[in-house]
Amino acid sequence: MTVHGPGAEPGEHSFSEENSARVVIESLRNTRDERLKYVLTSLVEHLHAFVKDIEPSHAEWQQAVDFLTAVGQKCSDTRQEFVLLSDVLGVSMLVDAINNRRSTAATDTTVVGPFHMVESPRRELGANISLDGNGEPCVFAGQIRSADGTPLPGALVDVWQANGAGYYDVQQPDVQPERNLRGLFSADERGRFWLRTVVPRYYPIPDDGPVGQLLAVSGRHPNRPAHIHVIAEAAGHAALTTHVFVEGSPYLDSDTVFGVKRSLIRPVTVVDDPIRAEHYGVDAPFRLIEFDIVLDPLPGPDQR
Amino acid sequence: MTVHGPGAEPGEHSFSEENSARVVIESLRNTRDERLKYVLTSLVEHLHAFVKDIEPSHAEWQQAVDFLTAVGQKCSDTRQEFVLLSDVLGVSMLVDAINNRRSTAATDTTVVGPFHMVESPRRELGANISLDGNGEPCVFAGQIRSADGTPLPGALVDVWQANGAGYYDVQQPDVQPERNLRGLFSADERGRFWLRTVVPRYYPIPDDGPVGQLLAVSGRHPNRPAHIHVIAEAAGHAALTTHVFVEGSPYLDSDTVFGVKRSLIRPVTVVDDPIRAEHYGVDAPFRLIEFDIVLDPLPGPDQR
Repeated sequence: MTVHGPGAEPGEHSFSEENSARVVIESLRNTRDERLKYVLTSLVEHLHAFVKDIEPSHAEWQQAVDFLTAVGQKCSDTRQEFVLLSDVLGVSMLVDAINNRRSTAATDTTVVGPFHMVESPRRELGANISLDGNGEPCVFAGQIRSADGTPLPGALVDVWQANGAGYYDVQQPDVQPERNLRGLFSADERGRFWLRTVVPRYYPIPDDGPVGQLLAVSGRHPNRPAHIHVIAEAAGHAALTTHVFVEGSPYLDSDTVFGVKRSLIRPVTVVDDPIRAEHYGVDAPFRLIEFDIVLDPLPGPDQR
Repeated sequence: MTVHGPGAEPGEHSFSEENSARVVIESLRNTRDERLKYVLTSLVEHLHAFVKDIEPSHAEWQQAVDFLTAVGQKCSDTRQEFVLLSDVLGVSMLVDAINNRRSTAATDTTVVGPFHMVESPRRELGANISLDGNGEPCVFAGQIRSADGTPLPGALVDVWQANGAGYYDVQQPDVQPERNLRGLFSADERGRFWLRTVVPRYYPIPDDGPVGQLLAVSGRHPNRPAHIHVIAEAAGHAALTTHVFVEGSPYLDSDTVFGVKRSLIRPVTVVDDPIRAEHYGVDAPFRLIEFDIVLDPLPGPDQR
C-alpha cells in the first residue's frame, strides 16, 4: 500500500546530459520580465555549452566555485574584484563597444575603469591638478567638437589619472592629497580646454587577489599603459568615456584590460613657444599632450 | 619633438566588437598548463558569445557585477551561495551527468548537495538515525549489488536526510542533536542494509540570499522534493552518489536543482508482516522505503 497519494511526477524529459539546457530553460517559463527571461535563457544556453565543451571533473568544478567565491570575498568599498575579472576577460571592453556604436567621426571610446569612484572637483581652465607634484609637469589640452566640426562651447571635461609613480589618489589615501589628479573643466567659448598636470605612468591593476592569480597562471602581466581618463559631455550630444594613451609607454601592445585603441595614442611633445606658454600659464619650453574630442549629436526630436 | 622613444604599439587588430574573443584568447598564449589554456579559451569564447547575444547596457552589466558580488559575499563557513547558483542553473547536475556516464544497469546518480558537510557516524545495521524523532517513523532498506547482480557484502552506505520538518541537523544546530539523521552503514554478508529513520519532508534550499532573489524574479519556487541522500561504495566498484525520492512528494516535477530522475522515486509502503518487522527491529505494521543500489565494477587491470 502506498501511503502518499499520487503526486506530481517529473515530466517526460527528466534531466540528462543531452537535454540539460532545455530542462533548465523550461523552468524559466514564468519569468515575468521579458528582458530578464531572454538574458537568463541565453545565460543557460551558453553556460551549459561551455560546461559540455570543457567536461569539468568534480575537482575542477570545485576550483571554479572556490575561485568565484574568492573574487566575491575580495570585494570591498574600495575594491571591485568582479570588475577586474570582467576587465581582464575583455568583457568590460566588449560591453563598451556594444554601447558605443557611433559615427566614424566621433572619438573612440574605452572603459571607465574602477578609479572614477570619487567626484572630480570643479576647476578653472589652466588649473594644475597635480597636487603632489609627483611626475614630469605637462599641459593637457584639446578642443571638444561636434561630429560636423562645430566647436562645443561650455562642454564639460572630466579628467582623472595616476601620478608619476603609477598610483591614483584613492589607492594612496595616506600619501596623496585628496582629489589629486582629478578635475572637472568647462571648455571655453571655442570648445577648448587646457590644464596643467603630470605625465601619467603605466601601472599594474590591483593584482594581490584572485584575478592577479588568474593573470599569473595564464602568463599575463597586470599592467596598463600610461593614460589619462576623460569623460566629455555637451548639450545635445552623447557623453563619451575614453582615455588618451601616452605614445611610447610600455604595454601599449598588451594592456591587460584591452583598452588601447590606436586612435587614442598621443605623443608628449616639447613646445618652445613663449606665446603658447603664456596662454597655458607655464614657462617655455613645456611638455604638451594634445587631444581633441569629437562627440556625436543626439538624434533630434523628429529622428527619435 | 616626441619625448618618449618609439615603444610597443597595439597589433594590427586592436580590440573591437567583432574580434573581441580572438584578442583576449591571443593574450592567453603563454598559459603553461594546457588544460587551463583550453578551459580559459573556451570560457572566453562562450562568455563573449553570451555578451554579444544579450548586448547588455552598462546598467545591466553593473547589475551582473553586483549580483555576483552579493553571491560571493553571502558565502561563509556554513553557506556556499555559488554552489546554490550552480545548482539552480542546472550546472551541478550537468557536471554530475558528465562524470557519471555509466552502464544502464547501474543506479542513476544525482548531486551530492551542500549538506554533506559533516562526516556520518558509523552505525550498526538497524540503528535509528532519527535522534530527534521529528517525522513519521520509517525503515529504509535495500541491497547493494554489482552490475551483474552479485551482492556486495560489506559495501558502505552513507545516508543523510532532512527531518520531518524539512531541515538538516547543520541548519538547526540549536534545535537538532548533532549528526541527527546521518549514518554510515556496512552491508551484511548478502549486501543488504537496513536502518530506522523518519520519512523526509520536501524543503526549500536556503533562499534568503541573492540566489533566492534570482529564483523569485524568475517565477521559480526554491523547493526540493523529499529525498534521502545516499553514497554507496564497494571494493572494486565505482562509488555512487544519489538520492532516493519519496513518491507522492510535492515538487517531484519541479525540483529547483533538477536532481530528480524517475528511476530514483520509491513509494513509502506500509508493511504488516511480523517476521519482517522483527528482522528490522520494529513493530508491525511499519512504514518502509526500499531502495536497491547497483554499482558498476571498475575496469580490471587488463582493461584499464
